[in-house]
Amino acid sequence: MLLIKIGGGKNLNWEGIGRDITVILGDEPVIVIHGANAFRGGLACRLGHTPRTVVSPSGVPSVYSDDAAMEVFLMAYPGVVNTRLVAALRRSGVDAVGLSGVDGGLWVAKAKKAIPVRDGGKTRLLEGNLSGRVDRVNSRLLRGLLDLGFTPVISPPALSEEGEVLNTDNDHAAALTAASLSITRMVSLFEAPGLLRDPDDEASLVPRIPGRDLESFREFARGRMQRKIMGAAKALELGVRSIYWGDGRGPHPVLDALEGRGTVIE
Amino acid sequence: MLLIKIGGGKNLNWEGIGRDITVILGDEPVIVIHGANAFRGGLACRLGHTPRTVVSPSGVPSVYSDDAAMEVFLMAYPGVVNTRLVAALRRSGVDAVGLSGVDGGLWVAKAKKAIPVRDGGKTRLLEGNLSGRVDRVNSRLLRGLLDLGFTPVISPPALSEEGEVLNTDNDHAAALTAASLSITRMVSLFEAPGLLRDPDDEASLVPRIPGRDLESFREFARGRMQRKIMGAAKALELGVRSIYWGDGRGPHPVLDALEGRGTVIE
Repeated sequence: MLLIKIGGGKNLNWEGIGRDITVILGDEPVIVIHGANAFRGGLACRLGHTPRTVVSPSGVPSVYSDDAAMEVFLMAYPGVVNTRLVAALRRSGVDAVGLSGVDGGLWVAKAKKAIPVRDGGKTRLLEGNLSGRVDRVNSRLLRGLLDLGFTPVISPPALSEEGEVLNTDNDHAAALTAASLSITRMVSLFEAPGLLRDPDDEASLVPRIPGRDLESFREFARGRMQRKIMGAAKALELGVRSIYWGDGRGPHPVLDALEGRGTVIE
Repeated sequence: MLLIKIGGGKNLNWEGIGRDITVILGDEPVIVIHGANAFRGGLACRLGHTPRTVVSPSGVPSVYSDDAAMEVFLMAYPGVVNTRLVAALRRSGVDAVGLSGVDGGLWVAKAKKAIPVRDGGKTRLLEGNLSGRVDRVNSRLLRGLLDLGFTPVISPPALSEEGEVLNTDNDHAAALTAASLSITRMVSLFEAPGLLRDPDDEASLVPRIPGRDLESFREFARGRMQRKIMGAAKALELGVRSIYWGDGRGPHPVLDALEGRGTVIE
């Protein structure tokens, strides 16, 4: 079984990804997990709720989610992007079913209401945050859909034990989802050829990273790429053996990534 | 099996509906179909896309859906309202799974790109419309989820044979969904005690309508209530035996409707 994570950029080739998935489905089932960050950001601005990015004491950026931000989040993730992606995959011949982490209690997260943020030189607690890390995956719904021959297409949010809808780190959730189904191979597609030593130079691609060296590569990673490295480390820790990072903009995003044309972590 | 249709009003008692569903699930499986019209309308205004209501030559109003309107539709229906309703039902103890008509090819509709509308005294064709009536229900996904013990919670859009995402009449889609699963009892909840002879007088409730007289009651129906009558007629034609219209705002919306406290059509 293959887990394909699709980033939330604007320029991903959904049609090419769909064609590749139909090829892979000839051999094995597929699960898709996707983001919607670019659409969410644009929509938040249109609605006058510019996303507020906060930086953790260890330097990792994330979006602060209050009630208004969560509503925009739902419009973008399970609303526009999940539905349009499922429709695009169906047009390619994939029998796709869209889900969010709320459905069937799929992603259970612990709410982190107060988050430590770096503010100038100091660390302070920011309250009222509606996000949290997935700490349990309820794979019964996924197994049922896979047994029926469907291809699940999952986006955040997650649900807390208390039933609150929460923003959650997609790379971490993908790692736990893979582990819950004993998946050993993951593809992650975004708008770059893979991990770059210099983010402004596509020729500086890192073709291969041994898992044990992953942490040392965080120095090259800017912004959200750091979360991908942390998510990959989590996936390896939980039993995933090969992670293929690749360019989601090319004609064959998934097949090219699996052939090692991006960054392979194992 | 019971199909519960929940209207798209602002003041429905989701918590009470959830409690009632847990009672019913002790006896039989449940399918939920819901709208999001109030939320969609408010959001469209916030985004500067006031919904454009058109009136068919026979006097039935509907919302014209161009690309921008469809995007708002997706934000509201599968986005905010479906996700929040699924979370609310889960908090009530219902093992709910949210779906749109796109998932698993559930609702297949024929696109009606040009719609005849009454414009002053004349009828003219309005082009570029992204809506269509569901003419086929693919119940395989629903049967699979029900077999696994989940409660499907469905909202539009539907998908055309060509893979276009389409706005669709929810009452008609509910009738075809009931028929596809041989469901004989339906509840429909909205923000009124049932069908009223005088929409401004809640005491003018019509307690019972024999199915053969349904068409004659269209004279009392204003606006979207006409679609509910047409949907009910379709449901009866397709084998549904009892339709319970009831008030979605009360403490026990579903149980009260089933006890005949609203309008019973059979």
